[in-house]
Amino acid sequence: MPGARVRAVSDTAMTRQTARDYVDRLERRDWPGLAGLLTDDVVYEMPQTRERIRGRDAFLRFNAEYPGDWHLRVRRLVADGRSAALWLDVRVGVEQQDACVWLEMSERGPISRIVDHWPEPYDPPPGREHLVERW
Amino acid sequence: MPGARVRAVSDTAMTRQTARDYVDRLERRDWPGLAGLLTDDVVYEMPQTRERIRGRDAFLRFNAEYPGDWHLRVRRLVADGRSAALWLDVRVGVEQQDACVWLEMSERGPISRIVDHWPEPYDPPPGREHLVERW
Repeated sequence: MPGARVRAVSDTAMTRQTARDYVDRLERRDWPGLAGLLTDDVVYEMPQTRERIRGRDAFLRFNAEYPGDWHLRVRRLVADGRSAALWLDVRVGVEQQDACVWLEMSERGPISRIVDHWPEPYDPPPGREHLVERW
Repeated sequence: MPGARVRAVSDTAMTRQTARDYVDRLERRDWPGLAGLLTDDVVYEMPQTRERIRGRDAFLRFNAEYPGDWHLRVRRLVADGRSAALWLDVRVGVEQQDACVWLEMSERGPISRIVDHWPEPYDPPPGREHLVERW
């Protein structure tokens, strides 16, 4: 099915660009620009706290109100059809944390679903020192 | 560049299958099968604990020795050229945790780099109750 293959490649290219734009608009606090990347009924979820935000307006407000002078940099971007995964390097002053972001695109292009994972640093459990090095 | 496009689609298909196989071999404790998916010098990293494991033998041993009757299920798989991202549902008894896994394939196909994020549950910070629902 060559038609389906070209369609899939084209979806992937658009998804990749939208994922890049998503991070760029957040980093620049460009709320109108960010709004243009989202469906009206976008759903945002944070599984670690079991929190969900429904709708573009609430999601924009959540980001605009988010405390701290946070900055985002893409470490890895994987796009596939209408799905994307982002590994972000997030900085607030000297604090650094990774974020894993899962995006789903609607049929017409904008982002319809966002899931954020915020893995925090922790001490390694004992018993595997013989296999690992630390950095 | 139609040639490059077909090449990229083909890489993506192989990467997607390798990512699926990776989870399958782990879930079945099929260590020879898992070994066949890895380069000799595969590097495994856990950024939260700043731990790194070098080489196929050490990585296989790390998994074989990992405590608990853990089970893995793919919640999302995103493949793109020689990169993939996996969102896994990990269960140990009644305990559930998500994992975010980033895979890189070598030019010849096997996995050359694995990065695991293990986001743990936490309580939501105060101040955003007006925007979120809990589940």
